[in-house]
Amino acid sequence: MTFSAAGSLLFSPFAIRGLRLANRVVLPAMVTRLAGEDGFVNAEITARYLRHARGEPGLMVLEAMGVHDAKSGPLLRASHARYVPGLRGLVERVHGETPVKVAAQIIHFLKISRSGWREKIQDIDRAAIDAVVEAYGEAALRIREAGFDAVELHMAHAYTLSSFLSRRNDRHDEYGGRSLENRLRAPSRVLRRVRERVGTDFPIGVRFDGEEAIKGGYSVADAALFAVRFAHLSADYLSVSAGGKFEDAVHHPGEPLYPYTGYSGDRCMPSAGYPDGLNVYLAEGIRRALRERGLEVPVIASGKIRTPEMAEATLREGRADLIGMARQLLADPDWPRKVRAGRGETVVPCVYNNVCKALDERFHRVRCTLWRRRDLHAPEAPADRDAPRWPAQAALSARAHDGRVRLEWTPALDEEGVYGYMVLRSEGAGPFHHVDSARGVAHRFEDAGALGGVPYRYRIVAYDMAGNRSEPLGPAAVTLPPFDA
Amino acid sequence: MTFSAAGSLLFSPFAIRGLRLANRVVLPAMVTRLAGEDGFVNAEITARYLRHARGEPGLMVLEAMGVHDAKSGPLLRASHARYVPGLRGLVERVHGETPVKVAAQIIHFLKISRSGWREKIQDIDRAAIDAVVEAYGEAALRIREAGFDAVELHMAHAYTLSSFLSRRNDRHDEYGGRSLENRLRAPSRVLRRVRERVGTDFPIGVRFDGEEAIKGGYSVADAALFAVRFAHLSADYLSVSAGGKFEDAVHHPGEPLYPYTGYSGDRCMPSAGYPDGLNVYLAEGIRRALRERGLEVPVIASGKIRTPEMAEATLREGRADLIGMARQLLADPDWPRKVRAGRGETVVPCVYNNVCKALDERFHRVRCTLWRRRDLHAPEAPADRDAPRWPAQAALSARAHDGRVRLEWTPALDEEGVYGYMVLRSEGAGPFHHVDSARGVAHRFEDAGALGGVPYRYRIVAYDMAGNRSEPLGPAAVTLPPFDA
Repeated sequence: MTFSAAGSLLFSPFAIRGLRLANRVVLPAMVTRLAGEDGFVNAEITARYLRHARGEPGLMVLEAMGVHDAKSGPLLRASHARYVPGLRGLVERVHGETPVKVAAQIIHFLKISRSGWREKIQDIDRAAIDAVVEAYGEAALRIREAGFDAVELHMAHAYTLSSFLSRRNDRHDEYGGRSLENRLRAPSRVLRRVRERVGTDFPIGVRFDGEEAIKGGYSVADAALFAVRFAHLSADYLSVSAGGKFEDAVHHPGEPLYPYTGYSGDRCMPSAGYPDGLNVYLAEGIRRALRERGLEVPVIASGKIRTPEMAEATLREGRADLIGMARQLLADPDWPRKVRAGRGETVVPCVYNNVCKALDERFHRVRCTLWRRRDLHAPEAPADRDAPRWPAQAALSARAHDGRVRLEWTPALDEEGVYGYMVLRSEGAGPFHHVDSARGVAHRFEDAGALGGVPYRYRIVAYDMAGNRSEPLGPAAVTLPPFDA
Repeated sequence: MTFSAAGSLLFSPFAIRGLRLANRVVLPAMVTRLAGEDGFVNAEITARYLRHARGEPGLMVLEAMGVHDAKSGPLLRASHARYVPGLRGLVERVHGETPVKVAAQIIHFLKISRSGWREKIQDIDRAAIDAVVEAYGEAALRIREAGFDAVELHMAHAYTLSSFLSRRNDRHDEYGGRSLENRLRAPSRVLRRVRERVGTDFPIGVRFDGEEAIKGGYSVADAALFAVRFAHLSADYLSVSAGGKFEDAVHHPGEPLYPYTGYSGDRCMPSAGYPDGLNVYLAEGIRRALRERGLEVPVIASGKIRTPEMAEATLREGRADLIGMARQLLADPDWPRKVRAGRGETVVPCVYNNVCKALDERFHRVRCTLWRRRDLHAPEAPADRDAPRWPAQAALSARAHDGRVRLEWTPALDEEGVYGYMVLRSEGAGPFHHVDSARGVAHRFEDAGALGGVPYRYRIVAYDMAGNRSEPLGPAAVTLPPFDA
């Protein structure tokens, strides 16, 4: 099936409580680590989100902003009126320059230390819970005052509200794990308080886990009931994530515990070895439970959805209402614009090697492994229609080495510079598939995922910053030694 | 959609290398802990599998049997000729009394100790690998000699061959983790050796993980290539499991490490909070990769597939060729016979609370939580058409307590005794759904999964050992206190 934007659901408008999105692609909140410790919007934050907005997703959710002033790594804040002007300036620029709607995700988190210790929800008293509720309400109001189109409450992953929802909630009081209703109490209070503060005409979204992906954690059965509650409390969209918990995080001595280091972190941001759309079943199960109860709140699916074909099918099959796309939009913010224009073949495909995640973990500024080495943002696509080309006598070599295939190729030529190389592979006489990419400065690649005895052919395609692609170089044929005892 | 056995794929025959199965329901290997430490077939093992066979799945896979003589808990063995007569006696009885085909799963495992220490594949030398290969070959031949219809090689979960396949394989030699081909070497040698020993006309199955469900583990991308290799080495069916690894296992001091205690164990045997058919995507992805390469080896999907509707849809949609069903067939071995006869409403539904798994973990004999307290096997369905009935003035009460619903009911009456009670729940005026079951001796139940403010109605249905169901008692209405800060 070839995707066509005309007549697609993906590129048809969608309304969230009167907020009209031009299409159904959503950029979910992604930490950038571009903010300082001071929590203010700065030039790099502004540049990052303007870059995203120029790609024209229907909705863009700014990274989590603290509702309180606790110590953390680099993080935006919505915890005081002093942050409002900076946020307003950013939103005004997005609205002034693009048709993109902008939400802000707001977050509360507990303390962590370099010893590996972390504060848990059972360590905080009722007054502290009251303060969390109040802080969310005030922060949400600031988000509205800053001119955002919506506010999104972070109830996913390892953070305070998610820990209340968890089946691993260890409290024994009315906020405690012994019943679903008690686990829902603090999140419900937050949602109600936020609605009181922002009024009835301002869209509120909730991001939460469809599955915790930890031992003894919850999955769709509970998540569907959370969704019902959120809908009853007038949430306007539900954005479904997975995992990202502290419970299975690996502590690196001397570093604060980072909640994406266990399998639940893998499940949150599935890497190349996982199938596309791995977590769609979560959004699907939640949406079905809502619709069975006559609740029409829209549901965002996410997790390695990267092709327009899969995005469209997910919408057509009624598995979700909107498509969240984080890492692919980090790799190439112009995905929506390019796909809508029928130029999907100029998209720079995400390789899902999670270098971005590793940077976040180390509090480094989050970049894409495919960007040029010194760039802090995806490059602008220049008005360039000239694809990279191969010099005369350009060659691609492929040889077997220790169970892997080593490729080496002649650098391609381009006026503006080669931005990257795509490695394509076929089995026998079969079709070529993209297996990975390398930056424009690299001219070699190692494939550790090949089977012995299978005749592979490789090709290299060079692309420039406009996404123009060269003719393929190759094929180079190679067969790893067949299995032989 | 109501299921009808007539015209279904599920109850149509299926051939595996000339082995004709009467239907497409497979009982996967499940540890019973009924064997002694001596490894011989005994009366209880025989009784367990005859009970399963009388339910008439198309294929029944006997629990893992050691290919070697290492110390373990209770475990069947295929490690010496002395075990063959006992195995032959069991197979002959199954063949004599039922139409069911019988495979034997054979396993190699490394040492574990009560200290939590475990031997790893990087601790063993090449001679030890040679010995594993040889032991599999000899054990498989014994399985053939014992009259089994097929042999299944255990390459899943925490065991030796799965550890070679793992992305966490830490060896640095030609059996090591640096390439897919190296990780496949030991399993490939085993499969080839087994084929050499059993000949070309004896079916060989491979059970392996479609996903490890651990940090840094493999998923479908690798599993699909394993499947291609297994097909090239003449595997006759591929049975897809998930998780069950040592890497995320929780060590209980003084107990040997048990590989189903982490999330990967939850994913292997998903409990009630997970959606049905959670792992079908693994079989689906593997099967697609095989078919794209013109490989026709059948694929078994498993993991909380419990309804004939889902089983049939999974086959119709080409996501799998055969349906594995373990815990549901433990709860009620007669599922295939009942469903085929159009009496699906007499099936005793599994409640997926994993008491069976907890018993296995403690080396206790594995039973179902729904069986009568002292029974070692599912009871035979008597020729009884009289359903349990409620005494005059029978009552069901439902009350709210601490965020949960407490139900209590009058015991039902039955000539042969009430076998169990099903708890049904509806929201508002909606349909009633089965939420859990209790044994016949219990007359109360607590529902911790209800939402405040939702008007629930509960009903209780009593059933006898033939599966005859009473009229529903109730409804009893209850609403937990609505959410209120």
